[in-house]
Amino acid sequence: MKSYRKELWFDVPSRRAFLNITPEVEAALRDSSIMEGMVLVNAMHISASVFINDDERGLHHDFDAWLEKLAPHAPISQYHHNRTGEDNADAHLKRQVMGREVVVAITDGKLDFGPWEQIFYGEFDGGRRKRVLIKIIGE
Amino acid sequence: MKSYRKELWFDVPSRRAFLNITPEVEAALRDSSIMEGMVLVNAMHISASVFINDDERGLHHDFDAWLEKLAPHAPISQYHHNRTGEDNADAHLKRQVMGREVVVAITDGKLDFGPWEQIFYGEFDGGRRKRVLIKIIGE
Amino acid sequence: MKSYRKELWFDVPSRRAFLNITPEVEAALRDSSIMEGMVLVNAMHISASVFINDDERGLHHDFDAWLEKLAPHAPISQYHHNRTGEDNADAHLKRQVMGREVVVAITDGKLDFGPWEQIFYGEFDGGRRKRVLIKIIGE
Repeated sequence: MKSYRKELWFDVPSRRAFLNITPEVEAALRDSSIMEGMVLVNAMHISASVFINDDERGLHHDFDAWLEKLAPHAPISQYHHNRTGEDNADAHLKRQVMGREVVVAITDGKLDFGPWEQIFYGEFDGGRRKRVLIKIIGE
Repeated sequence: MKSYRKELWFDVPSRRAFLNITPEVEAALRDSSIMEGMVLVNAMHISASVFINDDERGLHHDFDAWLEKLAPHAPISQYHHNRTGEDNADAHLKRQVMGREVVVAITDGKLDFGPWEQIFYGEFDGGRRKRVLIKIIGE
Repeated sequence: MKSYRKELWFDVPSRRAFLNITPEVEAALRDSSIMEGMVLVNAMHISASVFINDDERGLHHDFDAWLEKLAPHAPISQYHHNRTGEDNADAHLKRQVMGREVVVAITDGKLDFGPWEQIFYGEFDGGRRKRVLIKIIGE
């Protein structure tokens, strides 16, 4: 069994954003030389997500509006977590809806994807350096 | 390390449905001859889910009503994604709540499940052919 | 490829609670002697979750209040599932938001975590004995 590890770094200037990281995961997979196995891609921070969905600008707008309705940022006083001096409780909630991680099959050295699957980094509390972990195991 | 791959195909006539695919995953596992490892089961389409929960008709009704409350289908004009000509933005949102994939442990050649765990395909935008991927790695 | 399996047992007296199980997962990892691979940690019951987030009391209060708003326990008659004699339909819904499982990378014999990541058992229907599965594969 072979294993491979890589970190991706982000510093998103806005509070929230969705970034397509599929090319970076594909590059890591090529670099790993692993042909059959699984790749785990996860946010290393608890106010961010990694998820798979469509790379369509309108949908990303819809995700953002919907998450803001399910778990509004303001008023920040509505969350006990923000009594610690933080203002990002909503980001922890939004990340639970969108998920921490994805696991993708590797077949013949490629991400074994359906026609529209793309991997995104979802930032819900930007303005600082944060990481995504890519871990691949297989042969 | 051994690996095994299989696709399941669906063509659900209704817009939304939950289908128990546990027997198909168990058949794939037997076919793989893998005794220890992990199986990944994921929707290959971004308006569908694979998830684990109870095979109880009333609960499936509750899931459907609840998801429709969290992310209503209509009016379709409420979603920017639907300006592309689609009417399935709600399906992309519902799938995020229910999840894209499950990873299940394989022990002694069996799905290592608790007493009520069953694997479901969740369709949120039916009426066309769609796929689920089963990928197994182990020994 | 090596594999390792362990169950954790819980009997949470309250209906809902969040328990930090990171030390138990770390102990299992040491016991496995696996240095590179992946660990799957999943609830074996369908009214409970395993998820990764922050170990902060205020945030756990926020999760509980938020989940109760998204999927209220009462009135129990609002859910078809509860016609079976159960009163836990809400727990099945809450668990979908928080997730069934996490997959964590293992690097150099350790959980490959960001600075604040901790693993939690989320109980949404306590008062009975329930289990979490830890499955590790790697070398």
